[in-house]
Amino acid sequence: MNPLNPLTIRKATPADVPLILHFIRALADYEKLLDRVSATEATLLATLFGERPAAETLLAYLGDQPVGFALFFQNYSTFLAQPGIYLEDLYVNPDARGHGVGLALIQSIAKIALDRGCARMDWAVLDWNTPAIEFYRRIGAVPQTEWTVQRLMGEALAKMASSGQTVWR
Amino acid sequence: MNPLNPLTIRKATPADVPLILHFIRALADYEKLLDRVSATEATLLATLFGERPAAETLLAYLGDQPVGFALFFQNYSTFLAQPGIYLEDLYVNPDARGHGVGLALIQSIAKIALDRGCARMDWAVLDWNTPAIEFYRRIGAVPQTEWTVQRLMGEALAKMASSGQTVWR
Repeated sequence: MNPLNPLTIRKATPADVPLILHFIRALADYEKLLDRVSATEATLLATLFGERPAAETLLAYLGDQPVGFALFFQNYSTFLAQPGIYLEDLYVNPDARGHGVGLALIQSIAKIALDRGCARMDWAVLDWNTPAIEFYRRIGAVPQTEWTVQRLMGEALAKMASSGQTVWR
Repeated sequence: MNPLNPLTIRKATPADVPLILHFIRALADYEKLLDRVSATEATLLATLFGERPAAETLLAYLGDQPVGFALFFQNYSTFLAQPGIYLEDLYVNPDARGHGVGLALIQSIAKIALDRGCARMDWAVLDWNTPAIEFYRRIGAVPQTEWTVQRLMGEALAKMASSGQTVWR
């Protein structure tokens, strides 16, 4: 890495919302899922920096240039009775790859996880994203291939919420 | 369902920790993962009912008999800039299956999700658990087959946390 462009990381603040949205859209574009992004600066500001922040965001810089981000929140393992960290997004600008930016973001979050008494770090990767998968193998992450995530949303979720009637005891 | 054994649901309290541990172990046993359970009553009490509860638990009853549980926490979608619900555990006693207990637990959480402005409900299922998968298809859940969860824990997580040194800006 060019010593004139040192790699630094900082926690995002409300002023970073436009940059965070930029990275979310860049990641979605890379994942060929840009049509699924409905996030706006207003909704990100409200959910990430409101009264009850739903997640935390780290920004990575090479010199003064923001080149990547990671967004995470706490999850929980009943088997361990211990919280964990779920890494929702990790993205590095294409022109900044190969400088250890992604690794540095993961290292930073691993430290945060242990500092907070978390047992593990989980994240999901698209099956065709071979460069990412190879990177995750190199750092010792284990693919949970025997599990498949199920998702209820939109009309199916609304139907579920309005069907039946819970009798609370 | 026998009207003498009405299905009711309630939120768990600290006094329910032994019952919650019983259900966690029963679920793990069904999943052939009992050797991975290190949770104890003390660690469940601290993480679920301490100063910052890491998750919420619902208990389902048929009559006066506790027959199942669901444990969930909030996650977050950057694409939607909206929180969601992650259902970590769902379990119904074998002798109580077929009475709509699992469905009632999911319906209750779907209502909670919409009440809290959540966009979706996610959970994971083991690939050999055909009865569960068929049930999830019937209620309209969509399998996220193109994603695989990656996990960093134990020595690999500790190594990651102690390697490199984050330069915070």
